[in-house]
Amino acid sequence: MTATLDTLALPHEAQDLLFREARTANAFTAEPVTDEQLREVYELVKWGPTAMNSQPLRVVFVRGEDAKARLAPHMSQGNRAKTLAAPVTAILAADTDFHEHLARTFPHYPGAKDVFADDARRAEAAKTSALLQAGYFIVGVRAAGLAAGPMSGFDAEGVRREFFDGTHQLPLIVVNIGHPDHSGTHPRNVRLDYDEVVRVL
Amino acid sequence: MTATLDTLALPHEAQDLLFREARTANAFTAEPVTDEQLREVYELVKWGPTAMNSQPLRVVFVRGEDAKARLAPHMSQGNRAKTLAAPVTAILAADTDFHEHLARTFPHYPGAKDVFADDARRAEAAKTSALLQAGYFIVGVRAAGLAAGPMSGFDAEGVRREFFDGTHQLPLIVVNIGHPDHSGTHPRNVRLDYDEVVRVL
Repeated sequence: MTATLDTLALPHEAQDLLFREARTANAFTAEPVTDEQLREVYELVKWGPTAMNSQPLRVVFVRGEDAKARLAPHMSQGNRAKTLAAPVTAILAADTDFHEHLARTFPHYPGAKDVFADDARRAEAAKTSALLQAGYFIVGVRAAGLAAGPMSGFDAEGVRREFFDGTHQLPLIVVNIGHPDHSGTHPRNVRLDYDEVVRVL
Repeated sequence: MTATLDTLALPHEAQDLLFREARTANAFTAEPVTDEQLREVYELVKWGPTAMNSQPLRVVFVRGEDAKARLAPHMSQGNRAKTLAAPVTAILAADTDFHEHLARTFPHYPGAKDVFADDARRAEAAKTSALLQAGYFIVGVRAAGLAAGPMSGFDAEGVRREFFDGTHQLPLIVVNIGHPDHSGTHPRNVRLDYDEVVRVL
């Protein structure tokens, strides 16, 4: 399917696990996802880089029936049943108050907090780094041997009110997590060619 | 430093390569980065998921002296020298015209292009998925055995005019790439604790 990538440092099986064989899952088996697995995903991907080590990503793991029932009405119709059926659903959010932690997380630059004094600029920076972290998170779910089903089809303001009221956190993406049941997964869609995506100057 | 993550499916050495031992690099050795390596990074991370397989990420690899000289003035002062010194610098951008490819990249849903008819909504969707892909890209650079130095300190409008004029592409993040020289890298900054980042409901 793809040329063999022999010069990468990452072993071929790991490339397959994280990228080449991994598929977005729309259905999951009954096998549970443990709290320990969720913790280990975070403990791995927390090391990924963010601007000024700002780490704005916040995660709500929605697992219980009550919590799922609160989330489902805010998902788009096509995402509702699979979200209710997934063992765990993660709401990935950006904390626009991340700058309150910089004295601890970026201590060698005492002026870091002042860089983000402007609310609009800080919200933009929070979204940018939190989405990078969301990319690491999806890779981390796959590193755990689980499948991710990321979704952007949901009412972000509804999810914010339901799960983030009283915080400065903004939901960005919702990710179903579990052991995949790929029996109904359609064939893989094409990717853009290198020359459509990349210019070398 | 961290609890051993033995239950992950990804082998421990690969976890180290991509996350735990990988560090943001501010300086690089003279060892070159080949065009083949850059291609292999893309060929790996192109498989990462995006909303409706939209794949809005576009990459400009800035390698030649002329191209570097065009980029440097738009970098913030603290990022300028290290960008000029890096073997390659990637400008990661979002193509807000990604919907023109959906008939090919998401063929089972003929209405996909119409979902993104609104310009503002489409730009937002492009940025969201392109930043997820930027996260995959940084992981991919590390998978190649290289180090990444992602930077948000640059004049985005200046970079857009210089490198993306006449396109619908918006630069999001700039990443230095090379074999790391960590002799001047400061000790690793702390990460937020699981309980500061995660809620389980």
